[in-house]
Amino acid sequence: MPKPADTAFLDALAAQLPADTLRPAEARYLEEPRGRWEGAATHLALPRSAEEVSLIVRAASEARVGLVPYGGGTGLVGGQVAPAEAGTPLLVSLERMTKLREVFSEENVLIAEAGAILADVQAAAENAGRLFPLSLASEGSARIGGLLATNAGGINVLRYGNARDLCLGLEAVLPSGDIWHGLKRLRKDNTGYDLRNLLIGAEGTLGIITAASLRLFPRPAATGTAFLAVESPAAALSLLARARDALGEAISAFELIGKTGLDFLSEVLPEVRQPFETAPDWSVLIEVGLAAGLDPTEALEALFVEGHEAGLVSDGVIARSGQQAEEFWAVRERIPEANRMIGAVSSHDISLPLSQVPEFIPEGIRLLSGIGQFRVNCFGHLGDGNLHYNVFPMPGKSRSDHVSERDEIKRCLHDLVHEMGGSVSAEHGIGRLKVDDLERYADPAKLAAMRAIKSALDPHGIMNPGAVLRASA
Amino acid sequence: MPKPADTAFLDALAAQLPADTLRPAEARYLEEPRGRWEGAATHLALPRSAEEVSLIVRAASEARVGLVPYGGGTGLVGGQVAPAEAGTPLLVSLERMTKLREVFSEENVLIAEAGAILADVQAAAENAGRLFPLSLASEGSARIGGLLATNAGGINVLRYGNARDLCLGLEAVLPSGDIWHGLKRLRKDNTGYDLRNLLIGAEGTLGIITAASLRLFPRPAATGTAFLAVESPAAALSLLARARDALGEAISAFELIGKTGLDFLSEVLPEVRQPFETAPDWSVLIEVGLAAGLDPTEALEALFVEGHEAGLVSDGVIARSGQQAEEFWAVRERIPEANRMIGAVSSHDISLPLSQVPEFIPEGIRLLSGIGQFRVNCFGHLGDGNLHYNVFPMPGKSRSDHVSERDEIKRCLHDLVHEMGGSVSAEHGIGRLKVDDLERYADPAKLAAMRAIKSALDPHGIMNPGAVLRASA
Repeated sequence: MPKPADTAFLDALAAQLPADTLRPAEARYLEEPRGRWEGAATHLALPRSAEEVSLIVRAASEARVGLVPYGGGTGLVGGQVAPAEAGTPLLVSLERMTKLREVFSEENVLIAEAGAILADVQAAAENAGRLFPLSLASEGSARIGGLLATNAGGINVLRYGNARDLCLGLEAVLPSGDIWHGLKRLRKDNTGYDLRNLLIGAEGTLGIITAASLRLFPRPAATGTAFLAVESPAAALSLLARARDALGEAISAFELIGKTGLDFLSEVLPEVRQPFETAPDWSVLIEVGLAAGLDPTEALEALFVEGHEAGLVSDGVIARSGQQAEEFWAVRERIPEANRMIGAVSSHDISLPLSQVPEFIPEGIRLLSGIGQFRVNCFGHLGDGNLHYNVFPMPGKSRSDHVSERDEIKRCLHDLVHEMGGSVSAEHGIGRLKVDDLERYADPAKLAAMRAIKSALDPHGIMNPGAVLRASA
Repeated sequence: MPKPADTAFLDALAAQLPADTLRPAEARYLEEPRGRWEGAATHLALPRSAEEVSLIVRAASEARVGLVPYGGGTGLVGGQVAPAEAGTPLLVSLERMTKLREVFSEENVLIAEAGAILADVQAAAENAGRLFPLSLASEGSARIGGLLATNAGGINVLRYGNARDLCLGLEAVLPSGDIWHGLKRLRKDNTGYDLRNLLIGAEGTLGIITAASLRLFPRPAATGTAFLAVESPAAALSLLARARDALGEAISAFELIGKTGLDFLSEVLPEVRQPFETAPDWSVLIEVGLAAGLDPTEALEALFVEGHEAGLVSDGVIARSGQQAEEFWAVRERIPEANRMIGAVSSHDISLPLSQVPEFIPEGIRLLSGIGQFRVNCFGHLGDGNLHYNVFPMPGKSRSDHVSERDEIKRCLHDLVHEMGGSVSAEHGIGRLKVDDLERYADPAKLAAMRAIKSALDPHGIMNPGAVLRASA
């Protein structure tokens, strides 16, 4: 267990840094979106450069003080807030390191500091006539360093991959305080172990990312969006297979939405305009981005006709304008907000082998019925096998009525996911929420290797103590 | 330094394994394609399952005996042959583990054992109506385990990524002998450190891959191939940018070929049919794979016209048949054979930031002219910034006339690559050939982290001793 960032440590560190680099941590740095943890840090470091981060990490390493890297604070598994049990760590926020250092449009590369906000990176790419495809609900506040540390997913993974796949190189401060200057702009580089992918997804437990070289893409010549009512999740998967056969990588998003999600919107966000008069049991939101010479509306119409003739699709709407496409997307993107307003008993960010999805959805509901009466809002990135399978109280009840059942719900759904070869954390990560799950479900050889790597790179256990792996005593 | 696989060790191991699992190592296992190293192993293990691999690794770990994993033997950097200085390790060939365990066509996943030959995996994917896009000259003998251990590249990286990007999960035996059961079929799985990508590219120094779940892709509806003469490497890059703007991911290969390569073919392989009567200074071989509704010939003609009008392209041929496309590819694929016949003084598998390529090519020639008179055959995967920049004697001379200059040539070209932000091993890896280069050019913080990881996972240094990292004394 690391030592607390006490007054002696903070005073000595402050003397080495420009004024105003350390300050008391305001309440907002000690909260997280779902309100499950409260951070115990008293102070916050706001470095301006990798060199200042290095100085902070070196001092913490020498004094054995815990550090918690802080990005946009949007993580959903508590990776950014260390509770009192972890000692009193020092928060290290990258919010002053927001420079987009360089854009190489011809190379399709952009170099951003870790504190850059995702929406700003997207805008810079667009200004250069390119696309940075990472896109998720919190893009207005999530920062590049946190997005990479958690290997964020989002809506375009099907075509462009997750954050890991969008990164060519990193600059990072390792737990020793040494700066790794790895901002390569290369598509191919087989010189030694893949430190980049080891830091990506390590949730700040192996170092602090300070900058990244990011992949850009050509912008599709034309995009199209459709909302189709499908008979079932199995029908949605068949439709996806047909869409990929016809359009290849052009399918950039393929989102599944269940009736419960649409009902929740009607209930608590009635201002959200819905595409169907009667909410279908299942629907999919499809986005395609096509090369020049192909018409997205024609392509989506052809898919609708094919799906309809095959008995997969019962109804559908194709967006006739950018505004209508945005309305379609608002339906998908405001479901998490509706969820929060209703209050989930338990939320599950899971992934499954694609062919297991149709079996999982009803089997999960069957198992839940053995525990009590619930509503399930199942939605997510079907193209990636990634479901948000969230469990809600029946109308008239609230989450507080089900506190005692929460652990059993989580256990039974996660056991089922594991039996089916799935993952209990598809895109949100482990953080502090799923440390127990990782211990229960991870392959023992992998878990032993992870612990060995953590001890080797961070022998004093100062980097984000208690996240991903339990802090050693 | 690990202990040798002596008679006592081999006898004890043989007693635990089925008959015929261990046998003397024939000469072919002790050679490598460029004839630079001779392996010192006396024996070879031929396990049939991950369990047998585990038993072998556990025994070697207990006895501190070195192991060298052996795939198809096609590696070009000596990773598969340990010379006498590494002790006398036991070779572990995966050649009996060739099963394609399962094909999930709807999921676009295939599970192959490590000994499966690449061409067989490609054929199985094709039989399932899918594409496994990894493709390189040695695909008839290279095996999946070795391809992943070296993170192989090849001709389709531009569109589909390298071996790393084509792998969803691994089964592997770690240096402890424990089997990691990680054959996930998931597109998203954020449960802990990325052990998969750590083993991929570690060249057998952190464990032995025994099976992999591989990504398949829809087959493009139609493919087209063109051979275009371009004014310069800079013109080739401008053409690539235009091609990507027009066709997006549909560009699957974009190979640069210099006049020297075509001249070499005329000189030593005159039976290879060349597309131009007079070899142009620079040419590009382009392959596109298009979705239904687009005609590849039309797309390539449009690209030719656009390139011609912009002064980038001076001549060109579009393949009118599959046979003609194969002839075009034969030109590219037989250049390495011509190189071997002529005998390179020094070969360089390098990558550069794309925009640095046009400057690097002549600057390298200028630096070489300060050392002596040479011919440079520069060709490669331009779309990935990956050049094979190989240095040959002038006509009438041979490589043996230039032995004394080889180190200086390598040093001056690799220094230039490094200054320009490039990599001295783009796709072949470090093996034993480039251990010095890694020590010279790697970022010190990364190198320290690599050594810490190696010690943590393989504390006795038994896995492929002397490859990637120098064997500790």
